[in-house]
Formats: sequence, structure tokens, C-alpha cells
Amino acid sequence: MQTTMMDVPLSVNHLLERAGRLFAGNEIVSRLPDKSLKRHTYGEFYRRTRALASALQKAGLKKGDRVATLCWNHHAHLECYFGIPAAGGVMHTLNLRLSPEEIGWIAGHANDRFLVVDDVLLPLYRQFAGAHAFEKVIVFPFSGQPVPEGFENYEAWLDRADPDGFEYAPHDENDPIAMCYTSGTTGRPKGVAYSHRSTVLHTLVASLGDFWGLRGTDVVLPVTPMFHANSWGMPYGAVMMGVKMVFPGPHLHPDDLLDLMQQEPPTLALGVPTIWMGLIQAYEASLSEGSPNRGRWKLPQGMKSLVGGAAVPESLIRAFDKHGIWILQGWGMTETSPVCTISYPRAELRGAGMDERYRRAAMAGVPVPLVELRVRGDEGDEAWDGKSVGEIQVRGPFITGSYHEVPREREKFTGDGWLRTGDVASVDALGFVRISDRTKDLIKSGGEWISSVDLENAVMAHPAVAEAAVIAIPDEKWSERPLACVVKKPNQEVTAEDLNAHLLKSGFAKWQLPDRYEWLDAVPRTSTGKFWKLKLRERFPR
Amino acid sequence: MQTTMMDVPLSVNHLLERAGRLFAGNEIVSRLPDKSLKRHTYGEFYRRTRALASALQKAGLKKGDRVATLCWNHHAHLECYFGIPAAGGVMHTLNLRLSPEEIGWIAGHANDRFLVVDDVLLPLYRQFAGAHAFEKVIVFPFSGQPVPEGFENYEAWLDRADPDGFEYAPHDENDPIAMCYTSGTTGRPKGVAYSHRSTVLHTLVASLGDFWGLRGTDVVLPVTPMFHANSWGMPYGAVMMGVKMVFPGPHLHPDDLLDLMQQEPPTLALGVPTIWMGLIQAYEASLSEGSPNRGRWKLPQGMKSLVGGAAVPESLIRAFDKHGIWILQGWGMTETSPVCTISYPRAELRGAGMDERYRRAAMAGVPVPLVELRVRGDEGDEAWDGKSVGEIQVRGPFITGSYHEVPREREKFTGDGWLRTGDVASVDALGFVRISDRTKDLIKSGGEWISSVDLENAVMAHPAVAEAAVIAIPDEKWSERPLACVVKKPNQEVTAEDLNAHLLKSGFAKWQLPDRYEWLDAVPRTSTGKFWKLKLRERFPR
Repeated sequence: MQTTMMDVPLSVNHLLERAGRLFAGNEIVSRLPDKSLKRHTYGEFYRRTRALASALQKAGLKKGDRVATLCWNHHAHLECYFGIPAAGGVMHTLNLRLSPEEIGWIAGHANDRFLVVDDVLLPLYRQFAGAHAFEKVIVFPFSGQPVPEGFENYEAWLDRADPDGFEYAPHDENDPIAMCYTSGTTGRPKGVAYSHRSTVLHTLVASLGDFWGLRGTDVVLPVTPMFHANSWGMPYGAVMMGVKMVFPGPHLHPDDLLDLMQQEPPTLALGVPTIWMGLIQAYEASLSEGSPNRGRWKLPQGMKSLVGGAAVPESLIRAFDKHGIWILQGWGMTETSPVCTISYPRAELRGAGMDERYRRAAMAGVPVPLVELRVRGDEGDEAWDGKSVGEIQVRGPFITGSYHEVPREREKFTGDGWLRTGDVASVDALGFVRISDRTKDLIKSGGEWISSVDLENAVMAHPAVAEAAVIAIPDEKWSERPLACVVKKPNQEVTAEDLNAHLLKSGFAKWQLPDRYEWLDAVPRTSTGKFWKLKLRERFPR
Repeated sequence: MQTTMMDVPLSVNHLLERAGRLFAGNEIVSRLPDKSLKRHTYGEFYRRTRALASALQKAGLKKGDRVATLCWNHHAHLECYFGIPAAGGVMHTLNLRLSPEEIGWIAGHANDRFLVVDDVLLPLYRQFAGAHAFEKVIVFPFSGQPVPEGFENYEAWLDRADPDGFEYAPHDENDPIAMCYTSGTTGRPKGVAYSHRSTVLHTLVASLGDFWGLRGTDVVLPVTPMFHANSWGMPYGAVMMGVKMVFPGPHLHPDDLLDLMQQEPPTLALGVPTIWMGLIQAYEASLSEGSPNRGRWKLPQGMKSLVGGAAVPESLIRAFDKHGIWILQGWGMTETSPVCTISYPRAELRGAGMDERYRRAAMAGVPVPLVELRVRGDEGDEAWDGKSVGEIQVRGPFITGSYHEVPREREKFTGDGWLRTGDVASVDALGFVRISDRTKDLIKSGGEWISSVDLENAVMAHPAVAEAAVIAIPDEKWSERPLACVVKKPNQEVTAEDLNAHLLKSGFAKWQLPDRYEWLDAVPRTSTGKFWKLKLRERFPR
């Protein structure tokens, strides 16, 4: 027998139409380069997005053509998220933190036809313009300055378009709508292409109550860049539920974010741990007598903070909870849309004390619906016993099964079709994933594994430490030994002996302690704000 | 270009596996016929469900075979929800409120091969056993009594099965998993067949924060029968998030539900308005001095109550809110999986007073994601202005586009593929749907329409009225005129003059007032608890 259900394809166009119909009065706020706020309604967003789609069609965009963006987080970038797919195109977000050489290579590999670029990013564009010829470059006048000759002005272009006469490009739910290159620390970046289907499914799953818990009355502040893993997919969720969005623009300094939170208090904010580490330090410093910022900020009470992209130290979770903000840790990657696991308060933990809740919150979390997850050891699936460790492998309708125009690699996909994440973890009986390391960051000492992530988190729990990254250095006797790179908090002192004593107290064995400490001014970071261990390894080869 | 995303079909089997893996310790509670509580864990549910699937396969179940259920709400019915699809079968829930003749006809039309039946419902089964021959009848020993000769014992059958050796039947996401016949008040019932895809999508959408808002820490009490529109789809949502469920079994009397709420306080309860009307009356009566139930019950503070299946009077919403319970109204039908609209507190209403919030809560609500909704008048789509009225038509991936083995009817589907719901409504600028009537329940008086639903709600807002149903009676001069059938509250008096004065004060025009009032002991109800106006029309032909 057959189902009687309608055959209606999943489509982000539906989310756009829905927002235009239901949420026309809600607000989208963008912080401009001069730090003033620009306000749009969802009604304006809807009309402008359709105008963008119309302009793209008039410019000759064909089904599947790539339209690159080189933009900060703001309303026009959001318009690209929906307007490019509406016209049948594929939005390709270029990562402005990469080197110009890399950006140019990526634009060439993706064969991008058009580019939408912030005027304030034209200097960066000019550095890679020689590497790839876009047919048309549309400049968004983010700063309000006149657009230079030779470029299309985004606003004027939209004004000439026809949002009312516009018709959506016909599509299948498996057609691509967006593209993002992974920022691999080794090898060339590789492209992931999301579809209408994968995006709608990811949006529905991630928005659920225990995860983002998106509600129409929320106010969302996405600090996560829209050029990286689609700002974790939040723009799609916000538009689906008509949620007010506050975009920080180019101003990501802790002081700037705290200022913005005073003007537009969010109920939900998203960012990598680095952002929140800086923010809590700035905030706590402002509490001390004599601080020039004393009294300048309040933290938004009851706000939830989604943190991912790197392991979140328990000390950070405790620090924020002290101020009434709960950190919800997630784990995923560009390849997984990205939400794979989220650490949320489970019914089984109802009777548990705060120590147990913090401990769980510092884990990667529980797999979300539609994501199958397994931990693969040398001899097959590991038990979910909280101890057995292996590589996390995942499978599901919003997980990539290949890379754009790259031969399928053994290293990345298993024979039975699972994605190899390269993260090493255990899973416990409640399904909480605990990532111990990247496969390549594990430290093998005397035949035993030491987790660099565990060491880092423990070192960062010391009150005098701002940041810490641990790498392996070669060792004749033990094959590898840990080296800790530590950034002290301003005006704080701490020694290697202090930290080793602290680690012993935290439960580490003597043989697991770092052999060496290096005192840095800052830990080098990748374009997406993660600790860039490759750079540390170059600096400390032994 | 192509998406790089994996091609993984949506599947309710994934939800079952997920629950077995992640939520093994959570509880499922069922109230037995003797009113004692039976407790299972999700771990047991997982094993028993796979045992059921294994038993079905051993019994020779083939892909697409229908397995009927004739059961109350309890854990074994939940096992059927997942075990039958796991084996490749289609669960066909038989509505035990229908006449035996109708049930037999429906089982025959669906060509059901097996039947799972509660022992306490065997007397009902025997009344239609002659109309359709099931190959095998499996009796669930709900009451704990021995299972009569000639039937398979559900428990013994599961004991003989092989949950560990079991393998899921291969399937496509569009394969059917469940079937439900609409309880049409006219004509033969028609079958709707849900697929893996439609079910997973509906579950994700309905579970979102502003709708069911399902979280792992919830405790759900589904009073809505599992034999009607899949208990609104809640069993799928609860299993997806590992939510504790409390099943009321056959005990749906207000006193029984209130007793159950004391033992297992829910955070979320589902039912038709009738249930909640009875419950609040019983509860409020228990507060009065001299009541035999004085002090017996507390209402679960902060509980949300999902109410649908018929219009929810504003007076009911106010009555519950007085006691700390918020009623969330939804609208949908068997054909729509069923959730189409939900009335939730929108951001735009933040500044509104309670009167405005109650007014909105008494509407059908706002379309949920993936549901397209339009209001069709005589000359095309009506504007969303809160005034223009037409038939609601819907379209989406969890909405039926046909009926099982029935030729596609013009009356039910439009030429461009939308479902005609038969409900008449307006939609306002915020997208709130306000249902004024069933197309066939509108009263046409002197060329003007009178909404029977508006009149009913206003009459029910009178403090002396328990229930009211309004129908049209033929009238020589005006063509039709309203007749109100009213049930008074115990020990309360009210006259036609009182009610007319009350209606005038509520804003009705003189010509809209009922010409006649009939005083009933109870309003007749359909098998799903809705006012059965057909019976009233038979009783009051003029």
C-alpha cells in the first residue's frame, strides 16, 4: 500500500514566505561599522530578500550558480542566506579570516560567479581579486560611504529589481542552497554543499526545546560568524520562528559585545569559547573598584549562551552561571550542518547536585534527533560505558557524505557511509559524548594516551590562567610528552610548580603532567577562533 | 552542482533506536483497569517493542500489511506505534467509540490482517468479529485476567520472540507506517495513511518551543485517545525526546484524571475541550465547603494544557489560568497529522494586556512551519485582514493528498493540490486563524451568515452554562435561524431572556440571537468527543 501524504519538497523558500506572512512586524537589528544600530522589520527583510533574488535572476543567474559572500554578520548577509537560494543559486560564504591567497583559491575551486562584499572588506577583496575573476561584484555599502566605480551598489541594485514580479526558481529538495569550505588545519580546504532538505531538517532539529529552544519571543545574538558553518544554522531557525535578531557587525571585542548587550539584551547568544572567555574577563574586571568600566555593564539575566567550535572548560560554565547565564555546549563541524550533540539538562539529572550538572555541561552532549553516532575503536564499536574511547563517526540527513569535486577519501568516510569526524571520545550510558581529543592532538606517552583537551581544561580552571593549549613534543624515551602553552590573566602570577600541584589535585597522575610550560601573550587562533595547534607545533618543535 | 549531503531516509525506527540508546532509564506509566499504576522504563519499552516487531515478522507479516489496534492509551499501544512499523507493517488504530458495525466496515476496508486488542475490549471485538476476519487476534492482558482460548496472548507472544535477532524491515521514507480513518459525520469513514517521512516531519515541527515545547524533563499526560489521529502525534514526540509519559488507560472521568494528576503530576496534558470542561467543573466543585471531594485535588502548577479537536471557549482558558494552567489551543484534523495551527504567545503581543492574550488564546492560532495555509473565498484568496472569511485550505508534507483506496474527490481537494478542510475562517495580520464555523454548520439568515461557534462560545461564557451547541433550523422568512441547545451547570438556573441579554452585552446584534433555546441534560458527542450536531439536527428538525 501507499502513503496518502502529499509530496511537497522541503524548502527554505517556505521559511522566507512564512516570515513575510507571519512576522512582518518583528525586528532585525544590525550594528554598523560606526557602531550605530540599523533596524529592519521582517517585512522589509522579506521584500529586500525577494528584491535580491529578482536582481540575481535579472543578472542572468542560472540554477546552481555559486554566489559568494564576503561579509560580516548583518541584515544584508541574512538577505543573501535566503535571496540567493530563492533565485536558484548557491550561497558560498567566504571566510574573511583566511589568507587572501586561500580565499582566492577557494573562490576559484567553487567557481563562484558573483560576489556580494561589504564595502569595509574591499581592501581584503582586492588582495585576492587577481586569483579569481567574478563576473560581477556587488558591494554592500555597510559603512554608508559611496561605492567605488566599477562595482555594483547592492542597494541601488535592489532598488532596480522587482520583488513583486519575482518567482522562486523551481527546485527539488535535494538541490544545493549553500556552500561552506572547511577550514582544515592541514591540506586544502574542502567544500560542503547543503541542500534545502538538509537545511530544513537541521533547522527543525536544532531549534527543539532542549537545544536552541527557539521561541518567537527570543532575541538572538549570533556572534558566530555567518561565514562559518552558516552561523551554526541559526539564521534559518530565527527566520522560521520570526525571532528578533541582533547582528554585531564587525565589532567582536568583548567591550563591544557587552555594550551591544546593554542596548539590545539577548535571550540567546552564540559563539566560540574564546569570545565568552574574553567577555567574562572584561565583565569581571569591570566589577573591581577603580576599573574605568565600573558600572558600565550588566549581563542579561537568564540568557542562554550556546557555545561550541571548541571544548568549553568547566571553569567557564561555572563563571557564567555565577552571573545567571547558562552555557549550553554543542559539538559539530562544518560537515554536520553543524549541530550533532548538545549538552542539556536531562530528566535523569534532576536529582543531581550542581557539581554533576557542571560536569555534564562541560561535555559535548547528547546526539540530537536524526544524527546517528558511534564510537569506533580498533576493533569495532566501543561500548557506551563512559570509558571506552574511539573515533566519533556520524551519519544522518544533514551530514555530508562527500566533498564538492573532491574524490571520496578513505580518511574521511567509512566504507559503510559514515563520516569520520577525527574527534576521539567516549560516550556514557546517558549518551553524553566526552571528547578527549582530535585524533591528531592525542599525546602518546609510553604507550598510554594523554588527552590534551583534559589537560587544557584543568590548567584553565586555575584562577590565574586566562588560556591554555597543550601540544605533544617528541620525546626519546616516552615517544611524546605534553607541553603546555599558558596565557596568564592580567596582573596574575603563576609558576609551573603551582600548575603541576593544581593538576595533581585535579586528579591527574604524575606521568600525565606537562614536562614544560611556555608562557605566551596569546594562543594563536585559526580563522574560526579555535586554538591553532599547528602554529604552536611549528613554534615548539621540541 | 549537487549537494554533498548524505541520502538518509527519515524513519521512526531511528526514534526508537534513539530512545533505547539515550533514555533507557526514563519512565512510562500506565493506569490499569483496576486503577493501579504499571511502570516501565524506556529500556523495557525498547526491548518489548523490538520483541513485538520480531513476533510480527515470525507470524509472517509482509511489508505494508495492516495490523489493527483496538486499545486504550497504555504502554502496549505505544509498543504498537513503533513495533508494527519496525516490522514493516502499518498500524491501523481502530476507534473504539464507533459502532461495532462501523468498526467492522473500516477493518474490512483497510483489509487488516492482524489485530491487537485489549482484553477489556473483547466484548466490543466480538460484536464486529463477524464483519471482518483477522488472520490472528492478539489479546493484550490489560486487566491481568487470563486470555480466553483461541486468542494469542500478547505477553506470551512477546516472550517467544527474538528482540536481539530482530532486524528492521528495509524501507523508503515514503512508506506508510500508520493509518487512521476519519470520523466523518456524513458518509463512510475514509482512511489516511501516514509515512515515515510525514511522521518524522510532523513530530519535529509540533515539538518546537512555541508549540508542544517538548523537553526531556517534561511529563506528558495524553488524554487524547491513541486511536484518534495518533493521539495528535504526541507518542512520537515523547519517544524522540525521551519524555516521561503517563497513560490514563480507560479512566477518563474528570475525578479519575484529577486523581492521576495527584499521583503523577504532568507538565503537559492533551485533550479535547470537553475533557477540560468536565475537569475544571469537578475541581471547582471540590473547592466548595461541604463537597465530598474537598481537599482531594491540587491542579499541577505551571502545567500546559494542549487543547484541540473543537473550538476552545475563552471562558475555559480564563478559568484554567485562574488556577495557574495555561491552555494552548491547536487546530488540525486526522488529515493533517494533525497539528496545523497553534495559538502561542507571540513577541508582538508582549505589551498586550491579559484580555488580548485570552482573546488570542481562544483562536485556532498561527500556522506551524511546513504548513501552507490559505483562506479561499468565492473569488480566490481572501486577505489576511481579520475580517474576510473563506474556507481554510492547507498544503504540506504531513498533509494528506488523497484517501486510501477512494477516488480523489473534488469536494476534498482543489485542482492545484490543496486539502479543503471544510472549516471557515478569517486570518489576521499576525497570522492568527479564527475559525468561525464548519462550512456545513454556518447559519444563513436573511442572506447574512451567523457563526454557530461564536454563539456557542458566548453562551458558554455565561456563568450558569456548562455546555452549549448551536444549530440552524429552517425558517420560512429568513431561510435559517439559530437554535441553541444548552446544558446548565448543576444547581444553576438561567432563562432564554437571561442568555439573550448576555449575548447582547457580548456584542451580538439582535438578529443574530437564537430564536429558541432547548435545555438538555447533555450535548450528544461524536466518538472523538466533539459536539455531534447531526444528532441535534435529527432531534430538532425545525
